[in-house]
Amino acid sequence: MIFRQFFHHESSTYSYLIADNQTKEAALIDPVKDDTDKYLQILKDLSLKLIYALDTHTHADHITALGPLRDATGCKTVIGEGAAAGCASQYVKDEEVIKVGSLDIKALKTPGHTIESYCYLMSDRIFTGDTLLIRGCGRTDFQNGDSEDLYKSLQRLMTLDKTITVYPAHDYKGWTSSSIGEEANNNPRLQFKTMEEFVDFMNNLNLPNPKMMDIAIPANLQCGNN
Amino acid sequence: MIFRQFFHHESSTYSYLIADNQTKEAALIDPVKDDTDKYLQILKDLSLKLIYALDTHTHADHITALGPLRDATGCKTVIGEGAAAGCASQYVKDEEVIKVGSLDIKALKTPGHTIESYCYLMSDRIFTGDTLLIRGCGRTDFQNGDSEDLYKSLQRLMTLDKTITVYPAHDYKGWTSSSIGEEANNNPRLQFKTMEEFVDFMNNLNLPNPKMMDIAIPANLQCGNN
Repeated sequence: MIFRQFFHHESSTYSYLIADNQTKEAALIDPVKDDTDKYLQILKDLSLKLIYALDTHTHADHITALGPLRDATGCKTVIGEGAAAGCASQYVKDEEVIKVGSLDIKALKTPGHTIESYCYLMSDRIFTGDTLLIRGCGRTDFQNGDSEDLYKSLQRLMTLDKTITVYPAHDYKGWTSSSIGEEANNNPRLQFKTMEEFVDFMNNLNLPNPKMMDIAIPANLQCGNN
Repeated sequence: MIFRQFFHHESSTYSYLIADNQTKEAALIDPVKDDTDKYLQILKDLSLKLIYALDTHTHADHITALGPLRDATGCKTVIGEGAAAGCASQYVKDEEVIKVGSLDIKALKTPGHTIESYCYLMSDRIFTGDTLLIRGCGRTDFQNGDSEDLYKSLQRLMTLDKTITVYPAHDYKGWTSSSIGEEANNNPRLQFKTMEEFVDFMNNLNLPNPKMMDIAIPANLQCGNN
């Protein structure tokens, strides 16, 4: 398996390339429009064929590269069922598996940060979008976010094997990965004793809106093609 | 094996934590003084004992955490033979092996970016400091840098197995890792046909000095303890 993590400085977004080393088929997860040329370059450098570009959810802080990548490569674009964007090639359901050569990417429906947030699970790693961050979790105060849903989604993730590597869609402090076990033990958002305590905490964060929100959400509802 | 990559935003420095999952012994490579508390936190979170803090060379763009980590944990501090810093616990030679539990870290002397630049090789990955960057290499115009030496050091790295993952000390474009094979094929600094062409190119880069240089080098000669 080929694996690369990319960092978009302006929005502190992590994007991921996975590819089957034999068939050379590849997928990109949460790619950022600004970096489209970089993705196309590494696909060329490694002689890979992009067959899927997947978003974990409709991002509010950067514009997705799904549309530009589909235009450039003919790949399928994938988001979770329930997303308002009408522009994707495929809307995955809970536990649906996307195949990239011999690699399986299983979609897990994990609403809460947004109503259509999904995580993408592989055998030894999971791409958690904004559902589970390193020592944190996504906010729940816009885009039909729901703190109760997020609590349940995080609980679901915590049933996974503790050794699974966690790759989030963002980090703001210089962390690049974690594990399910590490987050179970050390993530402060996972230490509340009851759902009510978590919900109360999340509902009182009073965060400002993301800087890019008014631009990013309308653009992402068009898959970045505008 | 436990492995974590950290990113220091201000200097675009990557630092690395490696640890034996059984013995819980750990090492940090190229740690940044600003992030000392972060390293101490993750060591605590993962119940690890830091036994080594290693620098690949005397950095000019950030202050090392070697001294602060030794003060906080009692770990040994390691740099390459030939470094002007008199404050390290141990000066490794070419091909010397540092043991972290069952993990071997082999020092490879790779002068060029600086006269005492080393890379640290493990079974499936190499920490290349500023010797080999992703699609680039370190500059050679200060700290006894030498373009001929760097050419030879890069050639030496290119004799390693192509599948070995490359983890550099810096990246400025959002790349987090590469491989020996990927760099052999795609790094523009490795495409010169002769050493003379490489040397001529490197000697005419005319780069400004690093912003932190006048602070970082004197501080690093004291292992960050000043």
